[in-house]
Amino acid sequence: MVKTGICAGTFDPFTNGHLDIVQRSLRIFEKVVIAVAIRPKKEPLFDIEKRKELIRQSTSELDNVVVEAFDGLLVDYVRQKEGVAIVRGLRAVSDFEYEMQMAMMNRRLDNVIETVFMMPSDEFSFLTSTMVKEVASLGGSVCGLVPLPVERALKEVFSP
Amino acid sequence: MVKTGICAGTFDPFTNGHLDIVQRSLRIFEKVVIAVAIRPKKEPLFDIEKRKELIRQSTSELDNVVVEAFDGLLVDYVRQKEGVAIVRGLRAVSDFEYEMQMAMMNRRLDNVIETVFMMPSDEFSFLTSTMVKEVASLGGSVCGLVPLPVERALKEVFSP
Amino acid sequence: MVKTGICAGTFDPFTNGHLDIVQRSLRIFEKVVIAVAIRPKKEPLFDIEKRKELIRQSTSELDNVVVEAFDGLLVDYVRQKEGVAIVRGLRAVSDFEYEMQMAMMNRRLDNVIETVFMMPSDEFSFLTSTMVKEVASLGGSVCGLVPLPVERALKEVFSP
Amino acid sequence: MVKTGICAGTFDPFTNGHLDIVQRSLRIFEKVVIAVAIRPKKEPLFDIEKRKELIRQSTSELDNVVVEAFDGLLVDYVRQKEGVAIVRGLRAVSDFEYEMQMAMMNRRLDNVIETVFMMPSDEFSFLTSTMVKEVASLGGSVCGLVPLPVERALKEVFSP
Amino acid sequence: MVKTGICAGTFDPFTNGHLDIVQRSLRIFEKVVIAVAIRPKKEPLFDIEKRKELIRQSTSELDNVVVEAFDGLLVDYVRQKEGVAIVRGLRAVSDFEYEMQMAMMNRRLDNVIETVFMMPSDEFSFLTSTMVKEVASLGGSVCGLVPLPVERALKEVFSP
Amino acid sequence: MVKTGICAGTFDPFTNGHLDIVQRSLRIFEKVVIAVAIRPKKEPLFDIEKRKELIRQSTSELDNVVVEAFDGLLVDYVRQKEGVAIVRGLRAVSDFEYEMQMAMMNRRLDNVIETVFMMPSDEFSFLTSTMVKEVASLGGSVCGLVPLPVERALKEVFSP
Repeated sequence: MVKTGICAGTFDPFTNGHLDIVQRSLRIFEKVVIAVAIRPKKEPLFDIEKRKELIRQSTSELDNVVVEAFDGLLVDYVRQKEGVAIVRGLRAVSDFEYEMQMAMMNRRLDNVIETVFMMPSDEFSFLTSTMVKEVASLGGSVCGLVPLPVERALKEVFSP
Repeated sequence: MVKTGICAGTFDPFTNGHLDIVQRSLRIFEKVVIAVAIRPKKEPLFDIEKRKELIRQSTSELDNVVVEAFDGLLVDYVRQKEGVAIVRGLRAVSDFEYEMQMAMMNRRLDNVIETVFMMPSDEFSFLTSTMVKEVASLGGSVCGLVPLPVERALKEVFSP
Repeated sequence: MVKTGICAGTFDPFTNGHLDIVQRSLRIFEKVVIAVAIRPKKEPLFDIEKRKELIRQSTSELDNVVVEAFDGLLVDYVRQKEGVAIVRGLRAVSDFEYEMQMAMMNRRLDNVIETVFMMPSDEFSFLTSTMVKEVASLGGSVCGLVPLPVERALKEVFSP
Repeated sequence: MVKTGICAGTFDPFTNGHLDIVQRSLRIFEKVVIAVAIRPKKEPLFDIEKRKELIRQSTSELDNVVVEAFDGLLVDYVRQKEGVAIVRGLRAVSDFEYEMQMAMMNRRLDNVIETVFMMPSDEFSFLTSTMVKEVASLGGSVCGLVPLPVERALKEVFSP
Repeated sequence: MVKTGICAGTFDPFTNGHLDIVQRSLRIFEKVVIAVAIRPKKEPLFDIEKRKELIRQSTSELDNVVVEAFDGLLVDYVRQKEGVAIVRGLRAVSDFEYEMQMAMMNRRLDNVIETVFMMPSDEFSFLTSTMVKEVASLGGSVCGLVPLPVERALKEVFSP
Repeated sequence: MVKTGICAGTFDPFTNGHLDIVQRSLRIFEKVVIAVAIRPKKEPLFDIEKRKELIRQSTSELDNVVVEAFDGLLVDYVRQKEGVAIVRGLRAVSDFEYEMQMAMMNRRLDNVIETVFMMPSDEFSFLTSTMVKEVASLGGSVCGLVPLPVERALKEVFSP
């Protein structure tokens, strides 16, 4: 059976840290599904179609990667895609605690789906989507922090 | 004098992690008051009367437990109830920092009221009210995570 | 060249913990600029003019301290003021992670501007502006936690 | 039944942080036993008799406090003394993790004995026995950090 | 190509927490190698042959698991076994920091070998080999914390 | 008065992370003293003369840097050198706690000497002297992690 890993998130927007984790996941899993949450807790900057499109453009050179939207419980979605694990990037301590809470809850909801944590490259170890948006909104450069299509999309929003 | 411990919180909703801490508190204190914050920072899912009612139903078999609403400064309330300590459950690091800030501030406001921290059972060490609500809102089962009356109340809200 | 340190923040309101860090900064830097963010993420209790005024009153006895408002990217402002470093007070772990994210991002935006972290006095090690506002709003005393002008301003807002 | 709390540790040496926790424990428990580990992991500076003597001198003005040596599993000792809880002071994050490991293990060994965590006064929030010994060994003053009998004993060892 | 994960450690002794991580790894990897460090930093309780034997007995019912000793740099060993990832169990914050240091160093030494972190079951989230040895050495029961062969071996050492 | 910062440590050996902090310190301070602890807690790999020599060779191109050995209390040494601050590199959470304990103790011993924390470049954010020695001792390359003179010295020790 093909071993599939699920990289789930809001990706608002997709950063080079996310891309880094996807690339690393491909060393572990034969197939990687990037699952984009349709309804994030906070109002997103980019709608679900735009977020999916930006991820597709940013990962177009990677084989065995699929980009999809999902709704409802993540574990239900993972089961439906026959994924063996949820993949999460680990950056920092506050992350870590929240991630463990989520992973424990997901395990409780479906105890055969694992969560595996992977570390982004050190240059992205402090990068968050929130900070990218904040910098872009203030006119700062996010070059090197996000894929080119995302950089362009941010410019269209903040300095059209 | 009867030694009274005060378990204060929003309890939106009361979970099995909260229940666990209340039961453990009864080993230390002769009387435990569950003090429900009337006006939490975020708009609660259940109003104050419903939260109190669910806690009463969930703790009906415990002796020496009182459920009350409180408003204003917690230390004022504790002094009025002649409590010797505020009891807090400790789950994780982020918790810990915030809890220490609160405990230090409360000590500053009334330096004879102590805060004692207790650990929930390991199966609840990652459980939060927020996560319970999120799972329930997506149709997931919260069986085993909350007392039966709370489970029913969540169903009424999310899948009536 | 005069070595200038920039203490940046929202200061809503300025606390004795902030004052402590400013005083300590004066041992390191020849000049300290207190840079008040005009547009904080959350709606502030005090507007920018009031926050500046309260800081000026609270630091009136300190030499080599300037209070200013700033907007936009902090690093742009620091460069314009010819500051050598951003000064940040460090209280606790959750702080620490967020502060490192900010510092890394700022370094990325301008790699000759450093961030230096300093520790407030232990009596302020758990003090936050948010907690000060919460206590004051509930009628608790914040005496000793904020400078006198801030204490008065809080009283005017919450118990006029 | 008298509610007894057990403050267990190596106390090599007893500091003002320890004393602070003992005093706070007396607000919660009717009786406090200070249980001194006979065989700590590292070779202690003071032998068991000296450590007990220094604690007795330092707590001579407190009622309802007993100082004893213990050996073997702490939970066995607590059960024998009919203690309801082990009391631990919480200083910092690294502490916190280790303390939770210990508390979980002790609960596993005897699930009716609780561990309660209390916070020392902020002026002692970074104080450790190890640091006290290090400073004293280098000729620094530990006045205010340890009770007077301990200060004298350290002087006898390091600058006789 | 068969995807192989490497669970490396000292395993002095192998606990149910380790066993749990090995079992979970088998959901992600087609083959799991348990790599036992021949020369741990601290003098081990059990020698390398005994540690290997205990792991073999404890994992005898698992398919696709190999137990081996290794020496030298872990990344050299992983490359030789054609492993795609080092698997590490994550318990707590202090862990997390050290683990990230190790993972970063290993990535630096060989940048195509990933480290993936997995979470043990919550009942083992505070379990360490060190604590197991300490409890066993004091005559406490470690039943349920280690596999049966390890339990017996500890008894032979500590209460022969 | 010349503002002097003191970078104190064991430097066994000096790494590129240390060098990075020294370079950054020169943006804040007019003069930087690298103070090498003569008697570290653990037996050092390199003796005090060798450690000093390696640091001198590694910093030979930097102006306003002095390398010295020190003994006794760090604050006494800082006072004698008329330093305004102790400079410490901050890498990770466990660090952070220990560093705050040290800084608080040093402040207690001399309350006009500040401790300032600075962040190394992200590529060194997980680098420690201990890990460098471990890798070198196992024959791994530490190229890029330590200055060239240190790399050569490690080779002489481990693969002569």
